[in-house]
Parts: sequence; structure tokens; C-alpha cells
Amino acid sequence: MIQKEILIIGGGPSALVAASGCRMYYPHKSVSIIKKEKDSMVPCGIPYVFGKLLHSVEDDMIPCGNMAAKMGTELIYDEALKIDTEAKTVTCKSGEVYGYQKLIIATGSIPKIPTQIANHNAKGVYQVPKSPAYIRKMHDELENKQKIIIVGTGFIGIELADELKSVGKDVILIGSKLLKNSFDEEISAYMEKIIKNNGIEFLKGERTKTILTKDGVACGVELQSGKTIEADAIVLATGYVANVDVAKNSGIHIGEFGSIRVDEYMRTNIKDIFAIGDCAEKRDFITRRVTHLMLASTATAEARVASANLFNINLVKSFKGTIGIFSTVMNDQAFGSVGVTEKQAKEEGIEHISMVVEVAGKHPATLPNTQEQIIKLIATKKGGVVIGAQIVGGLDAGEMINILGAIIERNYTIFDLISFQVATHPLLTSAPTTYPIMQVAQKLVAEFYKFEK
Amino acid sequence: MIQKEILIIGGGPSALVAASGCRMYYPHKSVSIIKKEKDSMVPCGIPYVFGKLLHSVEDDMIPCGNMAAKMGTELIYDEALKIDTEAKTVTCKSGEVYGYQKLIIATGSIPKIPTQIANHNAKGVYQVPKSPAYIRKMHDELENKQKIIIVGTGFIGIELADELKSVGKDVILIGSKLLKNSFDEEISAYMEKIIKNNGIEFLKGERTKTILTKDGVACGVELQSGKTIEADAIVLATGYVANVDVAKNSGIHIGEFGSIRVDEYMRTNIKDIFAIGDCAEKRDFITRRVTHLMLASTATAEARVASANLFNINLVKSFKGTIGIFSTVMNDQAFGSVGVTEKQAKEEGIEHISMVVEVAGKHPATLPNTQEQIIKLIATKKGGVVIGAQIVGGLDAGEMINILGAIIERNYTIFDLISFQVATHPLLTSAPTTYPIMQVAQKLVAEFYKFEK
Repeated sequence: MIQKEILIIGGGPSALVAASGCRMYYPHKSVSIIKKEKDSMVPCGIPYVFGKLLHSVEDDMIPCGNMAAKMGTELIYDEALKIDTEAKTVTCKSGEVYGYQKLIIATGSIPKIPTQIANHNAKGVYQVPKSPAYIRKMHDELENKQKIIIVGTGFIGIELADELKSVGKDVILIGSKLLKNSFDEEISAYMEKIIKNNGIEFLKGERTKTILTKDGVACGVELQSGKTIEADAIVLATGYVANVDVAKNSGIHIGEFGSIRVDEYMRTNIKDIFAIGDCAEKRDFITRRVTHLMLASTATAEARVASANLFNINLVKSFKGTIGIFSTVMNDQAFGSVGVTEKQAKEEGIEHISMVVEVAGKHPATLPNTQEQIIKLIATKKGGVVIGAQIVGGLDAGEMINILGAIIERNYTIFDLISFQVATHPLLTSAPTTYPIMQVAQKLVAEFYKFEK
Repeated sequence: MIQKEILIIGGGPSALVAASGCRMYYPHKSVSIIKKEKDSMVPCGIPYVFGKLLHSVEDDMIPCGNMAAKMGTELIYDEALKIDTEAKTVTCKSGEVYGYQKLIIATGSIPKIPTQIANHNAKGVYQVPKSPAYIRKMHDELENKQKIIIVGTGFIGIELADELKSVGKDVILIGSKLLKNSFDEEISAYMEKIIKNNGIEFLKGERTKTILTKDGVACGVELQSGKTIEADAIVLATGYVANVDVAKNSGIHIGEFGSIRVDEYMRTNIKDIFAIGDCAEKRDFITRRVTHLMLASTATAEARVASANLFNINLVKSFKGTIGIFSTVMNDQAFGSVGVTEKQAKEEGIEHISMVVEVAGKHPATLPNTQEQIIKLIATKKGGVVIGAQIVGGLDAGEMINILGAIIERNYTIFDLISFQVATHPLLTSAPTTYPIMQVAQKLVAEFYKFEK
């Protein structure tokens, strides 16, 4: 048994951020990371490996070795198999056993096996794990395929579809409304238009029943509608599940959706064991329900919280729940979403008001390359607390959604937003007269909370 | 005497936003705007009229007529000269007298006359008022001048210098540190480098003593250092003062710096009279001192507050002070500032901590066109409340500074920022592992508030 001080299992963004935080806060403690593969990919960069922006898997690597060396952290290339919570040890595949003072589980997520689709594990069917070895092989194999079906219309599905299309593939996208968990219909309609204009065939509302095979190799799909479609390859972008194998049978509580139960300090039920990132259970900031959202940005926030509170409660009730804040880009248009959608608000029975405004993204709008900004704001009917927002605009909308993130995190009301101050500049933002966050708030106030007697 | 209901004096952004708000909140009240010139310019677009981005003054117009018609507001082209606060009337240059129920003064600002510079009103010397007629003439005249001196290193001065340089002029910029009220030395150094690389001659620290003339026409300047510089034209970008002529001798209180005293509802001391925008006195959000800052974005926030509280207090203590939030752009690099600079913190005796971090603006950094993001965060030593931030980055930094605006407005501490959640995306933002707002906060926490015992 080799005794360690701070031990982290996992090699993704949250593991690295936790290590970095621990090294900052506890410079006299050693930090060791047990990770399976030598390399780690930038998870959200994976779709871009298949297009023109990144040329290979090698362009999408987190330089773990360098980062670890720089922060003075040990990397152990091994697979953690089992935790003994009494002895405070982790047993690895190599047979080695490591003791810990504090253990952080950051084992991430793996593609969900779509058991509802027959033949889902046939040859020629791919998923999108965060494994460099897998993605390298998939990348090489897809280069020789022309017609590719992508099943799933979440972020990975649509980004991958768009990237593969950009390098000349015939792409067929199968799934429900695009990004339905992040955008309401009227906003995702903008994305649907781009997807179609780019030449992607979108079979909206279709569900995949069976992978068709020929000589054991996938050659198409049969849909629940009975339709069949031929293809050279099929990618299943049908979501992820927490990777909690190492925690099983250890006494660490697993929640009803299969992720590790944690509190606001990212502590599990077992003393000295923390869990962060995709493998840790999350609650939604607004609805307080357990959420399936898996986001690197949330994972790294949890990593910062865990490292700050590892030996003591230093930051009281640090992690307040997953804000659910996303962005993506299609044809130089950014799409962002934060908080709950209107659909979610309805499902949760939150009485709400909402409005969409559209403005020019620069001012005056006569400036070259002025793009429209469309913003939807959702607030509670009682009190006008902002609970959700969606945006479509130029690339800067990718940071505008983060303004709305701060607004939601700090419980701004639409009344507060009346006097919200922003920096405006002709070449950088919409006009001070029309800046969409204040404008939509003001319109909501005027429409729903009349000032006139 | 013609009786009006809501009467607004002025034609800039705040006047229009106030009119729009009043029409929304009080649809049964008529709104009339008294404005001097038929057209209004987009104020912050003025420097860009002189470069390649906007081709003429006509490209930088606020379509007041259309906006007024659309919102159902009357435009009266006249000059308001005098307010009778007893009779509740405004007398105009045409001789017409208008009665009001509620009056909003939004008369803006005019260039400060730099009385310290001899011959400052010689022919061939320009200032930068927001008058279309003046700017049209100045634009035409500068087209025939080659060597242009710009005095003043605030936003207008440096933007104008850069634009004139971009169309082939020889530009000499005279003044102190660039944007010294918004950026600390180490951040404005990045801008200084760009200014110089673009071929602008920057006489840093020089002060202009006299405008040299030949046959009554400006032909150069003499500096306080004794140096003389020849030029074909001189632009004095030496700041603005509140335009409060109409309020003088009316009993409306004017503050020590010459702007109209207002409270948190934008009310003057006289019943039913409000003042907003550059002509209204402001207090700094952090220091609570009267501030000279004049920003269209603050002005429009005040306009929204005034219209919401015109007949009743609807939004309690609405306007909380000027956040001082700015942005500009040079060579596709955006610069933003919010709150107090470190220099201001020192001058105010605020015990503070600060740090600068630098990260790649996209992730992975192998993506094309990845720009660096440099961010400086300033927080109080006691409590870690964020009081200022400065940023340099790609164009998206223009919206990132607005995230920091919300952070300052809502009194976030650096401890709060440890768990701050943002949307990250390879093509839109820096990595979740390195996102600079959380990174700089975490480093400040680790350095100044040790967690290790």
C-alpha cells in the first residue's frame, strides 16, 4: 500500500481543476491523480475534430502531463477498481493499492447504451465517449464513409452533424426537436433552419428502432415509423450516464439516476470522500430536482468547490445547484441557454411570463457584419424573478448568456434589470437604447405589471 | 401656451429611451420631445464616421423620426430656453410655451471648453460635439487635411486617432496615459502597443499649452515642455460638461460639478421635474462620490428608471449609482473596464487585493483565431467583494465585461466566484478549466485567504 495525501480518480476537466485548487489551497499536501488513459480530450471539442477546425484528435488534447507537472501533481496511469472506505484505500487494476487522506471521485460519464435500439453494438455503429483511443479510431474510420446517420439531437449530435457535413459527408440527423432541453421551439427553429440550409437531412420526430446490418456490419436504420434509411455509418449521440463503477459496493450512496449523491460541499456520505463532475449527482438551481445535465463548466465549478472545502468548510453552502448554462455555434451564429425553458417552467407548474425581443447586435446597424440578436426571457409571474433565458446572435452571444447566468444566480428580477448597466460600444454590442436584456425586462414589466392606474 | 402631458427636453439616447418607457407604462399619456436638431447621432459611433467602418455622418444616425412615430411620441423641433417651475411651463426659442404634467430634462453634454489652452477656438481647431451639423462639416474639412493632432486620451480621443489613422492620416496623439480613468497601467499598456503599432505617434505625458496659428488658422501646437508640432488640423477631445442651460435660474439645484442634482428616482428638487443622462449628476456605485462619467449606457438606465417612477415610486431606490462600465476596440481586440481601477482604489483608501491572469480565449487553443484574454480583478481586502475588473481579449470581451458588471452590481465576493457557472464552448469561450473570471478569483482566494492551517 502506498500512502497518498489527496487522491483524485479521473482525468477530465474536473479532476485537473480539483488538483489545481488543492495545490493552491494546500501547498504542503501532495496531490495524486489516478487516470486510465495517458491523454485526455477537451470533451466539448470532440465534435470539432471531425470537421475543418481541428485537424485531428491530437489537436483536441488537454495537456495533462504538462499541467500536472506545472502544478506539482503526480499522475498515476492506472484504473481505479475498488474503494475500501474503512481502510481508506483505492485498489487499481495493476494490483497497486493507494491510501488517501482525502479522496475525490471524478470519473466522469460514459455514453448511455441505447438498449431500446436493436443491434446498437453492431460494427459500424459509433458512440461518442471521451476516450482519445476510441475517437482516433472513429475519426479514421469515418473518413472512408460517405453517408452517416446521427441519432440524437443534443449538443453532441447536432455539432457532430454540422462538422461532418462541413467536410462533405452526407449527413442524416434523427431525433426530436433540436436541443429540446435547452431551447424552446421558437428559438430552436433558428437552428433548425441553419441545419437544413447547411444541407443536413433532419428527420424530426423520428425514432430509431433497429440498426440494419449486412454481414454483421451496420448499413442503415429502421425507424419506428417503418421507414428504412441506408448509411455507411451510424453514430449514436444518445446521451451519457455517470461512470460510477469504482464507487459501487463501497457504501457510497448512489442516487436514483445512477450518480453519486453529494451535498453542497461535494461530499459523499462517506467521510473524506468527495465526488465532482459528471459522476456526481446534481440538483437544478431553480427547480431543485435532480438533473441529468452534464457540463464541463458545472463540473469545474464543483471541482473548485470541493478543493476549497476539502479539509474544512471554508465557503459556506458553496454549490447552489446546476444553473444549466449552455452555448453552441452554427454558421457563426451563437446559441445560448440558461436556467429553465418555458416548457420546463410549464412542466414544473411555475407560473411564469416570457417575451422575445430582436435587436441589431451592433450600433448603428449600418456597421458591417451586424447580426441580429434574439433574446427570450422567462420570469416568475409572482415577483418577476428571472428563471430562464435563451439567446441567438453573433459569436458574442456566447458570453452574453453568461451575463444572464449571473442574473439568474443572483435572483435578479425584471424590475432590477430596468436599471441594469452594461458597457456598450458600436463595434461590440447592441445600442444602449435597445440592449436586449434591459429591453425585454422593460417590456415584460410594462405588459404584466402595469404602472398606470 | 400649449398644454402637454409628459414633456422631454433633449434628443439623445436617454430622451428616446425615456419616451419609449413612458409610452409603455402610461399608454394613455401623451409624450412630447423638444429637440434642437432634426437628426441625432449615435454618440459612441461618432469616431467611426471618420474611418472606414461608417462612410458618412448619415450612417451614424438615430432614426428619431421613425422611432418617435413608432412609439407614438410627438417631436417638437425647437430649443427649450427656460423652465417656469411654478407655472409648470417650458419656453422655447420660437416663442412657443409648453405646459407639462411631468418634465424630463435630458439635455446631454457638450464639449468642455479647454480654457487652459490658448487659442483653443482658432479656425482649424475642432471639438467633438454630438451635433450632426458640426460633425458633417468637420468630417468634410478633415478629408483635406493630412496631419492631424488629437489632444486627449479618453475614449473619443483614442478611437478618433485610430480611425483617422486607418484612412491614411498622419496622427499625433497628445495626452496622459491612455484611458487612465478606466484602466490601470499594465492593462492600458496593451492598448498603447496597438496604438503605436498602428503608426500613431503618441506623445505620452505631454500637455498642450497653445494652439499655434498662421493667418488666424491653426497650424500646430506648442506643448508645455516647449516642443512645437506642426499640423493641418487639431482636435480637442478633452472631455464634456453637462448641458444645463435650460435648468439655470429655474430653482433646479445644480451640483458642484455643474450637473443637475437628482435622487435614486432621477427626481430633481422640483416637483414633477426629472433629469437623466449626461446632464444629471451621478454617484459612483462603489465610492459613492459624484462622478464625471458620461456613458450612454448609464444614461439609458437612468431613462428607464425615470420613466418607471414618473408618477409614483414603482421601483424602490432604483438607480444605485454609476457602475462605470466601458468597452472599446482596437485592431479586433476589445478592452473593457468596470468598477474602480486599482489606482482609484488606492486614492480612495480602499484596502484591496488584485491579480491579473492570462488565458486562451478559445479551447483548445489550437483552434484558428484563438486570442488571449487578460483579466484583472480587484477586490476589497476585507470580505473579498469585487469592486473592479479590466479585460483585454477578442471581440467577445466586450460582453465579458458585462458579466463582471453584474458581478459588481450584485456584490459578488471572490468566494462566491469559486462556484460561478458559465457556459463554455470551444468556439465561443475559454475553457471551463481556465475560464478567467473564476480562475483569477480562485487565485486571489488562495493567495490572500489561506485555507491551509
